[in-house]
Amino acid sequence: MRISELSDRTGVPIPRIKYYIREGLLARALPSSKLPGGYDDAHIHRVRLIRAMVSVGGMSIAATKAVLTEIDAPSPSIPNVLGLTTAGFSGDQKPRSGENSAHAVAYVRALIESRGWDLAADEPAEDEFIDAVETMMDTGHEALLGHLDVYAEAAEKIAEADFGCLDENDSLAVIVEKTIVGTVLGEVFIASLRKLAHADQARRRFNP
Amino acid sequence: MRISELSDRTGVPIPRIKYYIREGLLARALPSSKLPGGYDDAHIHRVRLIRAMVSVGGMSIAATKAVLTEIDAPSPSIPNVLGLTTAGFSGDQKPRSGENSAHAVAYVRALIESRGWDLAADEPAEDEFIDAVETMMDTGHEALLGHLDVYAEAAEKIAEADFGCLDENDSLAVIVEKTIVGTVLGEVFIASLRKLAHADQARRRFNP
Repeated sequence: MRISELSDRTGVPIPRIKYYIREGLLARALPSSKLPGGYDDAHIHRVRLIRAMVSVGGMSIAATKAVLTEIDAPSPSIPNVLGLTTAGFSGDQKPRSGENSAHAVAYVRALIESRGWDLAADEPAEDEFIDAVETMMDTGHEALLGHLDVYAEAAEKIAEADFGCLDENDSLAVIVEKTIVGTVLGEVFIASLRKLAHADQARRRFNP
Repeated sequence: MRISELSDRTGVPIPRIKYYIREGLLARALPSSKLPGGYDDAHIHRVRLIRAMVSVGGMSIAATKAVLTEIDAPSPSIPNVLGLTTAGFSGDQKPRSGENSAHAVAYVRALIESRGWDLAADEPAEDEFIDAVETMMDTGHEALLGHLDVYAEAAEKIAEADFGCLDENDSLAVIVEKTIVGTVLGEVFIASLRKLAHADQARRRFNP
């Protein structure tokens, strides 16, 4: 197909598709007598995946390229791909020098150990979580941490349900797309569901 | 105390405190021979509460004023105060005209009924949740909705733990402050905890 049809079918404008090609995220077209224009279904899938990472996930081009390189490797590892994806979402790690830093790190390490979570040594989500715990301590709102096991158990149930949406036969590219969209959309979804449950609790506890 | 001490003790700059007074969020000082400067502990609490709403919650001055007016009423209602607070966080409601709008509304109504949640007719969190469900349907990621009961149960457990952090003896102002900080910080907290649980799931499911 031609680039105009690729653009129509993915909803991504032509200049942006050309930009993806220049940056090495998308293979160049290989026009042949059989395939006028040179784009095929693999291009459509790849463009949708890039859009999920860049537009929905807000990932940088460099982070997107790192994930795609791992996907295209001869034997890609799913945990590595997901780790690179999570890293792409997260900001850069700042040095920890606050008065509660060491306390927050120890707190999170103890939680991970007690839940038996199997994590990579440099898991980016761990840094993000330490940041959140440290902010709670800094602002005097550490009361939430008293219920940490309730929150951790709820997060486990949610993560299991999230992964339950993956199909055994999904390709790695589809798994990555579902993970990105699921992580970003799922965050809004869980946050608003929690607010709904708050509203219900408020009426139960404080209404006459 | 003087305004300079009020600024020091709350960390809010003097021009901003004056702005709060001009906008009617904070009472003017009442200097007397007993109270030089005219500011007291009630001013400190109020400034901290305003800062939680405006800086942490990102609420507008108008939305903040609506919450404070309800708090200052002769017999304030906690569900009303929390409803105004949640409304202050949320954006304006857009008209629902997408192809999945009616489907998303019906879906959310059925969930609320089956969970037995007691919500106000115009609960703003409900609109936010309908938006999230509609976006999932629009982007072809409705698989998550197949596990809605798991997510709803997790949200209930989380909301119960959140409210468990409130003290019976907390004043309404403290409850509002805890709710705002808890909602905003808690969102980052739950989101990063979910990513951690994802990382664990990925290694369990996909590592050899």
